[in-house]
Amino acid sequence: MNALSGGEAPSFSPLIDAALAAELLGRVRQRRPRVHCITNTVAQEITANAVLAAGAIPSVTIALDEIAAFVASADALLINLGTLEPQHRAVISLAIDTARENSVPWVLDPVFIDRSPVRAGYAREIAGRGPALVRGNVGEIAVLGEGADAPGLARALRTVVAATGATDLVTDGRRSIGIANGHAHMAAVTGMGCAGAAVTAAFVAVGEDPLVATASALLALGVAGDIAGEAARGPGTFASLYLDALHGLDAADIAARARIVAPSGETSP
Amino acid sequence: MNALSGGEAPSFSPLIDAALAAELLGRVRQRRPRVHCITNTVAQEITANAVLAAGAIPSVTIALDEIAAFVASADALLINLGTLEPQHRAVISLAIDTARENSVPWVLDPVFIDRSPVRAGYAREIAGRGPALVRGNVGEIAVLGEGADAPGLARALRTVVAATGATDLVTDGRRSIGIANGHAHMAAVTGMGCAGAAVTAAFVAVGEDPLVATASALLALGVAGDIAGEAARGPGTFASLYLDALHGLDAADIAARARIVAPSGETSP
Amino acid sequence: MNALSGGEAPSFSPLIDAALAAELLGRVRQRRPRVHCITNTVAQEITANAVLAAGAIPSVTIALDEIAAFVASADALLINLGTLEPQHRAVISLAIDTARENSVPWVLDPVFIDRSPVRAGYAREIAGRGPALVRGNVGEIAVLGEGADAPGLARALRTVVAATGATDLVTDGRRSIGIANGHAHMAAVTGMGCAGAAVTAAFVAVGEDPLVATASALLALGVAGDIAGEAARGPGTFASLYLDALHGLDAADIAARARIVAPSGETSP
Repeated sequence: MNALSGGEAPSFSPLIDAALAAELLGRVRQRRPRVHCITNTVAQEITANAVLAAGAIPSVTIALDEIAAFVASADALLINLGTLEPQHRAVISLAIDTARENSVPWVLDPVFIDRSPVRAGYAREIAGRGPALVRGNVGEIAVLGEGADAPGLARALRTVVAATGATDLVTDGRRSIGIANGHAHMAAVTGMGCAGAAVTAAFVAVGEDPLVATASALLALGVAGDIAGEAARGPGTFASLYLDALHGLDAADIAARARIVAPSGETSP
Repeated sequence: MNALSGGEAPSFSPLIDAALAAELLGRVRQRRPRVHCITNTVAQEITANAVLAAGAIPSVTIALDEIAAFVASADALLINLGTLEPQHRAVISLAIDTARENSVPWVLDPVFIDRSPVRAGYAREIAGRGPALVRGNVGEIAVLGEGADAPGLARALRTVVAATGATDLVTDGRRSIGIANGHAHMAAVTGMGCAGAAVTAAFVAVGEDPLVATASALLALGVAGDIAGEAARGPGTFASLYLDALHGLDAADIAARARIVAPSGETSP
Repeated sequence: MNALSGGEAPSFSPLIDAALAAELLGRVRQRRPRVHCITNTVAQEITANAVLAAGAIPSVTIALDEIAAFVASADALLINLGTLEPQHRAVISLAIDTARENSVPWVLDPVFIDRSPVRAGYAREIAGRGPALVRGNVGEIAVLGEGADAPGLARALRTVVAATGATDLVTDGRRSIGIANGHAHMAAVTGMGCAGAAVTAAFVAVGEDPLVATASALLALGVAGDIAGEAARGPGTFASLYLDALHGLDAADIAARARIVAPSGETSP
């Protein structure tokens, strides 16, 4: 089955396919990476549940005297800037230091930096400290880039950037890919993007190439959204069915539904 | 269709009807007001999800150096006193100042003041700073009123007071209205009242008259509860179906189910 | 109906049976004990919802100047060490003091002490201050015991210890019992164990014997898990159906499904 929408980009050679995404999901389930999530309180529960549904193991403490022990024994770290309180900055800084010392890859999710200049400044500061991935919605990535598009931001930060939206764009500044899966209800459930970033961190933990791991994670998450959307009556039941779909996802689901597309224009806000 | 239960109050001329409530719900969905919610951590997720399901945009940060930016760019502010920690008072005070300076209407939800004298005293203090609405359950409103009934409290504070229960009472001290919709499961799901207050704030943001907006919101929320209650197996599935119902609610649902009643005696605890 | 699995322990005389567990559940619903839960933010919502579904009344504040008022007016206290921040220690200490002064039984849940030496040390310190019950998963109880098994730990602390897993072990060091109910999805939903500890605290509040109350609670929770597991499509719908099942649980359900077993070897990690 050809997962590409035919007419769109005849010469486009995608970085991933459904089989590769399924293989990485299988690795997550087998290795059960530990993902430490420094995230906002509103998203903690769905984040932990999505990580569990994908087959990985979440932890969420933000206590200053425990963070180093948790990060050092984790396989990936997520830093989400939602509900950014002053005391969290010391925690985040120590978490990044610990991740770097222990070669634990970390993911930055600059939530709501388009609403708070303080947060935008802080996001720019830590984005320079070597994240394996920066993931935000199109508006947040635009604010972080200060005029640069997603590939430009990826080149400037020497990292992978994922700008999520109706079509997700994943890029390292040279190579790019689009994922057109997912359901409109995903924007009507709080913490869905945050949870997706944590699941993506689990894929990065088990993958060799953060670009491939990120695209694979977004494909798996989008297909889970497609499946849940078909059965849901609205955003409330969707959230439960999304976790069910992620938990039950298999290679055949991904192969049948993958919509991998050329990365054209997705970064414009 | 006459939404009034016939024999109950033949001379009662209600402030709202189903069509007006549906019109305000339509405005929420079209204008998508931003509702900043300072609320307890246990209720944050369902609060954000209910605001999204109604069609508005929630934010929940309580960081002291960000609160002014969030409130100044919001269309309504909710202050919920659950999980009231000392450092939150500075945040709440700055949020109220910012709301007043920017003419952002704010809603006070004095959660659990019947369990904590410290919290009751604090609630009385900020209730005098010009909320557009004070919403609590019957017991909380009684404690806040210190002997005054809901209309008396509304007159003393020069604001709208909503005392929720089997029948919700909404009053500004001169005009009053009762809403008898809703389902018993709403009391068996944590944060349901808090979430309802946040949705009500979204209605206040788009309405001209806070009394009418509040009654309309409580009617929409109650009808969503009725619809969810019919399909639910218990409080767990009810919570999901309630969000679905709120998301899918239309004028015909409200017209068919509205139970607008005379405000008689609902304030006695 | 004989709830014992026949061949396993012919001479085993269990401490509880299905009828006793149902009777205690009935008392929870009738007396509606107040359970104050000091718990991690990720588990707060499902904890409060499980307590409500069982028929009791949760509160979750951790504000230092309110904790004494909440604990003094509660019927049981839960102390969960997830997300342990430094300022929470003063709150926990005051909560324990208040519980002891007011004869409010308290339950310790030493979450994740196998990941954080700081937390393990703190858990050992407060475990000596007279909890009615220490509840953890098998790994956490092993770390807390420092080599002692669950009965040994119970004797050392002079309390009841519950080590949860595929089979839950409940022991006071002399008497022990196993509960083999429950569903695999319970390990795939965050906060499930924390929520179960809070429901157990409600049973302890209405029971005379903490050992019997704890075993009864774990039996009721396990049967609810069995029921939910049959209807669930995955861990997302399971969480909602679990609350439904707990809310609707009756004596016939417990009698039909109880799997009370001899306590053999369940403490080995």
